[in-house]
Amino acid sequence: MTKNIRVGIVGATGYTALEAARLLAGHPSATVTAATSRAEVGNRLADVHPSLAGRIDVQIESLDPASIAKKCDLAMCCLPHGASAETVKQLVEHGLRVIDFSADFRLSDVATYEKWYGVTHPWPERVGKTVYGMPEFFRDQIAGADVVANPGCNSTTAILPLAPLAKSGLIQGDDIIIDAKCGISGAGRGAKVKMLYCERNESIEPYSVGTHRHQPEINDLVQRISGTPIQSLFVPHLAPMDRGILSTIYTRPVANGGSADQVMNCWREAFDGSAFINVVDHLPATKHVAGTNYVQMTARQCGDRIVLVCAIDNLAKGASGAAIQNMNVMFGLNEGAGLA
Amino acid sequence: MTKNIRVGIVGATGYTALEAARLLAGHPSATVTAATSRAEVGNRLADVHPSLAGRIDVQIESLDPASIAKKCDLAMCCLPHGASAETVKQLVEHGLRVIDFSADFRLSDVATYEKWYGVTHPWPERVGKTVYGMPEFFRDQIAGADVVANPGCNSTTAILPLAPLAKSGLIQGDDIIIDAKCGISGAGRGAKVKMLYCERNESIEPYSVGTHRHQPEINDLVQRISGTPIQSLFVPHLAPMDRGILSTIYTRPVANGGSADQVMNCWREAFDGSAFINVVDHLPATKHVAGTNYVQMTARQCGDRIVLVCAIDNLAKGASGAAIQNMNVMFGLNEGAGLA
Amino acid sequence: MTKNIRVGIVGATGYTALEAARLLAGHPSATVTAATSRAEVGNRLADVHPSLAGRIDVQIESLDPASIAKKCDLAMCCLPHGASAETVKQLVEHGLRVIDFSADFRLSDVATYEKWYGVTHPWPERVGKTVYGMPEFFRDQIAGADVVANPGCNSTTAILPLAPLAKSGLIQGDDIIIDAKCGISGAGRGAKVKMLYCERNESIEPYSVGTHRHQPEINDLVQRISGTPIQSLFVPHLAPMDRGILSTIYTRPVANGGSADQVMNCWREAFDGSAFINVVDHLPATKHVAGTNYVQMTARQCGDRIVLVCAIDNLAKGASGAAIQNMNVMFGLNEGAGLA
Amino acid sequence: MTKNIRVGIVGATGYTALEAARLLAGHPSATVTAATSRAEVGNRLADVHPSLAGRIDVQIESLDPASIAKKCDLAMCCLPHGASAETVKQLVEHGLRVIDFSADFRLSDVATYEKWYGVTHPWPERVGKTVYGMPEFFRDQIAGADVVANPGCNSTTAILPLAPLAKSGLIQGDDIIIDAKCGISGAGRGAKVKMLYCERNESIEPYSVGTHRHQPEINDLVQRISGTPIQSLFVPHLAPMDRGILSTIYTRPVANGGSADQVMNCWREAFDGSAFINVVDHLPATKHVAGTNYVQMTARQCGDRIVLVCAIDNLAKGASGAAIQNMNVMFGLNEGAGLA
Repeated sequence: MTKNIRVGIVGATGYTALEAARLLAGHPSATVTAATSRAEVGNRLADVHPSLAGRIDVQIESLDPASIAKKCDLAMCCLPHGASAETVKQLVEHGLRVIDFSADFRLSDVATYEKWYGVTHPWPERVGKTVYGMPEFFRDQIAGADVVANPGCNSTTAILPLAPLAKSGLIQGDDIIIDAKCGISGAGRGAKVKMLYCERNESIEPYSVGTHRHQPEINDLVQRISGTPIQSLFVPHLAPMDRGILSTIYTRPVANGGSADQVMNCWREAFDGSAFINVVDHLPATKHVAGTNYVQMTARQCGDRIVLVCAIDNLAKGASGAAIQNMNVMFGLNEGAGLA
Repeated sequence: MTKNIRVGIVGATGYTALEAARLLAGHPSATVTAATSRAEVGNRLADVHPSLAGRIDVQIESLDPASIAKKCDLAMCCLPHGASAETVKQLVEHGLRVIDFSADFRLSDVATYEKWYGVTHPWPERVGKTVYGMPEFFRDQIAGADVVANPGCNSTTAILPLAPLAKSGLIQGDDIIIDAKCGISGAGRGAKVKMLYCERNESIEPYSVGTHRHQPEINDLVQRISGTPIQSLFVPHLAPMDRGILSTIYTRPVANGGSADQVMNCWREAFDGSAFINVVDHLPATKHVAGTNYVQMTARQCGDRIVLVCAIDNLAKGASGAAIQNMNVMFGLNEGAGLA
Repeated sequence: MTKNIRVGIVGATGYTALEAARLLAGHPSATVTAATSRAEVGNRLADVHPSLAGRIDVQIESLDPASIAKKCDLAMCCLPHGASAETVKQLVEHGLRVIDFSADFRLSDVATYEKWYGVTHPWPERVGKTVYGMPEFFRDQIAGADVVANPGCNSTTAILPLAPLAKSGLIQGDDIIIDAKCGISGAGRGAKVKMLYCERNESIEPYSVGTHRHQPEINDLVQRISGTPIQSLFVPHLAPMDRGILSTIYTRPVANGGSADQVMNCWREAFDGSAFINVVDHLPATKHVAGTNYVQMTARQCGDRIVLVCAIDNLAKGASGAAIQNMNVMFGLNEGAGLA
Repeated sequence: MTKNIRVGIVGATGYTALEAARLLAGHPSATVTAATSRAEVGNRLADVHPSLAGRIDVQIESLDPASIAKKCDLAMCCLPHGASAETVKQLVEHGLRVIDFSADFRLSDVATYEKWYGVTHPWPERVGKTVYGMPEFFRDQIAGADVVANPGCNSTTAILPLAPLAKSGLIQGDDIIIDAKCGISGAGRGAKVKMLYCERNESIEPYSVGTHRHQPEINDLVQRISGTPIQSLFVPHLAPMDRGILSTIYTRPVANGGSADQVMNCWREAFDGSAFINVVDHLPATKHVAGTNYVQMTARQCGDRIVLVCAIDNLAKGASGAAIQNMNVMFGLNEGAGLA
């Protein structure tokens, strides 16, 4: 067990970086020892994120893999896709272990990546050979990994409930609708008119209907985990809240059965030993998991459909909490260390 | 044309009553001349709803149909189901025309009503013989009606887009999922812990999954309007906003076609002359219609499904705005008078 | 009485422009006939503001005073300070009447303007000679004006309650603290990180403590109206809401008296005949006036201080509602036409 | 050092109880071993607070001091005033140490208590002889206490900044205005119409102007800590947010000086060694401290006044976080254990 993991946050101005820093500030065995951001070089991390005042005292530097490698055991890379893969490669070459928050190493093949992300992959050799950072399914591989592909926030709310059901053959793989309601922090901290308070408060709207990049991620990962191909339709909505995702998933049981009870039992078995998964009887709300790494999921029978409901905090289990969980697994700590 | 319609609000303490009063305060040809509430007898309406201060000066009285009949031409009845039908009967017997906000006269048959509402209907003779207050489909019948059954808020977001498609045979009637995101005012103004600010802010959750009373209302009315039976699954969610409903509706076109374009064209034809229906290219948000009687709807093709999106203000077009629109039709005014 | 006032909105992308357009869409005697915006030339106004879909059909053009003058009787100028004065001058020279939303013509002298706004005034001759658009105090001058300086939103919440008290000599002019809580739309529709939903939701903070430009405006106008110099301290706060301003104003009565009752009586007398001012007994909330042009104000005695509370909707009475009210006065309409 | 403190939560249904439970669930050296609530006997704590699902597994019992004493080392008493003192007495008599969340033991004398709370004090002997749970000023007394009077939430935002200034003689004690903006959770979890989401969202309003019970608490404690009598005016406002209090405090320096810089220096000295107090240069926002036990405060010079700004999370440092901090001191733990 590492006594104190030295963590560098690469791309430190966004919300996932802030949440990672916040969680690391309270972690018993890890410390933020470096932070990088092109736009904020020379400022303190707490100048950019005033909620860190008095909690983390690190100066922001420009990204120099050699320098980060000297100060850190692990890098959490919070850069946008494309840019991230490039940087991850350099960090690994300098001997760092990396948790990559981008989508660059999540998918199984380069073609799908390049089709959905519209860029040439900078490190195609590692695509399909990098572990997906969901300890509930890939704990052992994460433990030994040099790079972990941290899951997408929306994807987490779909893969966790769907993969065990697909594996058990309980549901039809070609009739799955995922209607997600997402907090606005998922859109990042860029200065966009569309994300202003006065545009988003007291309003809900769909976006990227059937064209969101988490749709291929969900289909890919459920297949990778379950061995069963699925075709889901994913429709996200921006809900007037800072954090949280609630996915309502419409499935059909296979011809000869599959009830909501069987679904619940399947989950309880699949997630036995997974401390952050709560299979609950009540209908989850995002508030029930806000600020925590927990997942709440339940199922309801509705005629010839089974409706699944899954709630997480998009910045916690959907991003930075998952990263801390992965870090704990990578460094042999208690999986829940520093997480509430 | 009636110069000045005298309106009584029966059951004046809730949010739909407040919204009706607010709209009537600005209406060019109608005035609130009476308001009743068991709990608030003797108070001014503006004591209960301080936003009406200086705008409406009416004292709240107990409900006496004879007294209301003397002062009013029309009653807007905002009582809960069961209680409402009883009162509507008395008001009609005293010669008043009535717009009933409850569900008591919406459905086509007593059996369905009694199954879903769990009460014996107090005036079964009028069930199935009362016009549904959606001028877009029933303008002529509303004009001559003594009682109008004002539509349910969620129902409005589903019936408006689905009925023309069912009528045109564009979609399969047995594969319809309505995922609704609803503002909290829909839950009423009762003092419930679950509706406190601190329970609902920054949180979203489903409720009444597949068991909500608007599900039979939607199925019943789409069939009544289109002549085609449908079976929809309706799943509402409480979203952290005061007002607004956005329904995302998952449909399948019939075997030999039906594209999103056809859907849009079908709507444009069906709602030609319906001033409040906007068929739009953009993805609607509830903020786009908040505080107005307008409806925005659009359609998107997603593989073998067509996704419909419909947004309204639940208190306006979903309740009190629709009531004003119905009143305008009943009294021969411009259908949009007093509505923005 | 003008049958139909043709209105041009100059600088049409912001929130005050949207609110003006929304109010004009429902106005019985005015129509939006032109809209300008450098950034959106060629788009429809409803493309920029989807809530106007189906309600206003105007194409956005670049600003050409001669062209606007042909199509319009009145320009509502929603440009930033400095830029606005320049444009107002041109519009007036082309024969248009103008309501200017900027601060350029509000103050009494050029020196104060240039000190607080840090720019050279483009039309200094009109400073101190342009009527302040508060019909409660300047109704007659507005009626005949070619240019009206529309009041600042925060200023409105302070000038309305303070001016009558200063005039009556009820309060000490050198011991006034105005603690304002402001909705976020007051910060405009620019793409700033600080105004993102995730920065502002569920949070309150002060800004421009003692340095806000509405402080000299308040002091100047109260003196202009009352003849009595005052020195107030103005401290605004960003509250997590789209619209509304609530100002809590801490005053001291003059030595020989001045009670909360006297304050209320003074206001009732001063605002007799001012339809939008409601002197109320309850403590106002911004929700009580949201979406309306109404003002609610009250006073409370607290030992040797009198606390004044004043609430408005910053986009309505604080900006675009006031502009409509001014337009009504300028064109001889009923002062409340098109306003709720 | 106690290895594991067994904590009983008395009155477990409210928001402060939930926050205490949440913090204790993540505490390294404490466990919730009992929870009481008259209304919820027999339910699990996580049934009442679904966010505790999978985190705390305790059954709610009725309040029996003897039973609690067997299972617990410490009781956190979250009952309303009056009822609380009665219970605290019994718990102490059964050998428990108690942190009392009510106001019953905060004030220095029974007469003031009975005047402001309108009840006869059930245990007057302990009034004025119970330590006020603010470790920043009373660390040593808390360490040895059997009963700790946990501070009021609003009071915390005023006492912390004011007491050092009063002690140093920097400010005039008779010219202090505290304008507080408070999250709605401060109003508790009772089912009141006034606290419904739809009454409170997007709205701000004052309440208890000059009559709030935290006013005498502030004056009493500042005097107790500083030895200097003060007379403040306290005006709280309900802001549309779940958590957080921001107090803007208007003071006057004493005749011969007192600048904002001196204020900042005075605080830095007074809070040297107090880990949760951050004297900051930026203007604090409640979001900067939300979910944490931290306090941010700053000062600004405005002519002849100094404006102080202080922000906390009302449920954390304003209630349950302070209680954990007090528990840590009482049981010889690191003062920040289990707190972020």
